[in-house]
Formats: sequence, C-alpha cells, structure tokens
Amino acid sequence: MTSVRLPRSRVVILRMGHRIPRDQRVTTHVCLTARALGADEVYVSDTHDSQLVDTIRKVTDDFGGNFNVETGAPWRSTINRWKNSGGKVIHLTAYGNPLPRVISEIRSSASDKLVVVGSEKMPGEVFHLADWNVAITNQPISEVSALAVFLDWLFKHRLREDFPGARIRILPCDHGKRIVRSH
Amino acid sequence: MTSVRLPRSRVVILRMGHRIPRDQRVTTHVCLTARALGADEVYVSDTHDSQLVDTIRKVTDDFGGNFNVETGAPWRSTINRWKNSGGKVIHLTAYGNPLPRVISEIRSSASDKLVVVGSEKMPGEVFHLADWNVAITNQPISEVSALAVFLDWLFKHRLREDFPGARIRILPCDHGKRIVRSH
Repeated sequence: MTSVRLPRSRVVILRMGHRIPRDQRVTTHVCLTARALGADEVYVSDTHDSQLVDTIRKVTDDFGGNFNVETGAPWRSTINRWKNSGGKVIHLTAYGNPLPRVISEIRSSASDKLVVVGSEKMPGEVFHLADWNVAITNQPISEVSALAVFLDWLFKHRLREDFPGARIRILPCDHGKRIVRSH
Repeated sequence: MTSVRLPRSRVVILRMGHRIPRDQRVTTHVCLTARALGADEVYVSDTHDSQLVDTIRKVTDDFGGNFNVETGAPWRSTINRWKNSGGKVIHLTAYGNPLPRVISEIRSSASDKLVVVGSEKMPGEVFHLADWNVAITNQPISEVSALAVFLDWLFKHRLREDFPGARIRILPCDHGKRIVRSH
C-alpha cells in the first residue's frame, strides 16, 4: 500500500515528571504510543534515562521510521524555547476544554506542536503557558490513552502505515502471528 | 449538553496477565481508560487485587457512572463463558488485522463484546478463541493506548459525557482548574 505524505508540522511530546524507576513503564508506553500514532519525537523533561532511550531506539531500529527520544532538558526552558520559535503548546489535562470543541482549531494551526503530558504533579504554570489545555473527557484518565486519542484525532483517524527502514514487519492475519525479517 | 443514549451491547475488558505489584499502575490506566471511554466493566484475570478494585471504586464514587472491576477469575473460563452466552471476543494485538479494515464489521455486531488486552505473554490460545484479532497499527504499542483508540473508534468518536451520580464534576476551562462538588 502506498500513501502520499504531505509535508506537515512537527509533533513532539513533552513527558513531564518522569521518575526512575517508578515511571519507566508508563513513560515507555507514552513513547511507543507517540511513535506508533505518528508523532516525531518525545522529550522526557528534567531526568536523564539512557535505558529508556535505548529501549525505544531498539524498537525504531527493528520496526522502522524516524523517531527519537531525548531526556533530561528542563521543562520550562523547553516550553519557552518552543514558543519562542513560533511553535504551539497543547497540554492534555482532564481540566481542559473538551477535545471535540478545540480539535478543529488545533488542526488548522500550521505551527509545530508540543503536546505536554503529566505526571500527577503538573506545575500550575503549564496551564498558563499552554496555548490549549485539552481534555480527553473531563474524567480521570491515563496520560497514555489521552495522548493516543489526541494524536488519532489530530491526524484525522488516519492510522500511520509507513515506517521506512523496518527490519521486522508484522503481516496482519486473522489468527496467529506472522512476521517478515529483512537483513 | 444532552445526549440520547441508545440501548447498546455491553462492552467489557478482559485484562490478562496482571502481576502485583509490577502491573498495578498499567492496569489502573487500563481501568481508567475503559471507564472514561465508555466500557461497562473490567475483568482482571487470574489475580485478585482488592487495592485495584478499591482505587477504581473511589474514582467511580467521586466522578460518577456505573463501572465495575472484578478480579481473579481464570481467563479461559471467562472467555468460554462469554462465547457460550453469545458474546463476541475481540483481542487487541499488533499481530491482528488493522482496525480500519475490521471496525465496521465489529460495530455492526449486536452481541456483547469482550475486549482482551495483554500482557507481554499472551497465550497463543487467545488468538484462536478471539472472533477478531485487531491491530491498532501493526506496531509495538501500549495496551492502554490500543484500548483507548479501539473504544473511541467502536463508539464512533462520540466521547462519553454523561457520568450520572458524580460528586465531583470538572468544569472545562481555558487555563486552570475548576471543579464543582455536590454532597
């Protein structure tokens, strides 16, 4: 299957409040979700985590695509640099405006987009730095699923299929597992 | 905002391979996602976890709706009982058929639906017991985000808004946090 990729703005996730070892699994889920659903990169703020970077690099080496994880940069300067370069900031929070009300406005922005996801202890400042505070339901939910639904809506429910350079490809099937390896 | 709720089939999640304490956070994310995105219940297979049940009960007491978590029933008898009662089984796996290809067929089924989510070590038998093996991208992804995207597509991107009996309601706002408590 071929698909035409239009040039589009960059979409980068800022994962806040990552603690080792407590958050390593959930942050790994955030990174896998970001990659599979079409984001370009994840910044993990304030904490260096080379194990996480290696885990995701191995997935990308095996399954293709260009995707990167950077860890350790402070969150405030990351957000401010992003805004100063003309990028927009979207903060996913149960306290924000419902996704269906704001998604058209967000989609229509041609700017690069930084999508900020929690952590339980989100600094209040983030609510004010964000161009949009967006709720995936105004209910308690996982940051992993909030990110997944947001990216799927942002990209208009066109799930990404092209991951160039894959060494391992999964071939869909009705029952069982089929993969192809290329060397 | 009012919404008309049509009678619909039950949607229950079967969470496989839950281990204490390793999986408690991710399984909590599975349960919060299931509740917020419109499922009726989560069965956590094979392992009793009263702490998890209490955590989710407290969320439902505070934020409303009818939602339940049951833990400890063996997965094989749960699936077989479901099928024997006329229900359908959907297994979310990167090895399955892409969501866009199968979602119409799944939506058009009037049967109750059991949505099975992993665990890294999914028994091969599940691939054969499932009526549909469904991939949210044929890429490594989180079971939390796979479940989120699946439920959102199943319910045609109509995010649930009615959670009756809530003690705490979040009022959407542009910047900040607003809640209303009723006693």
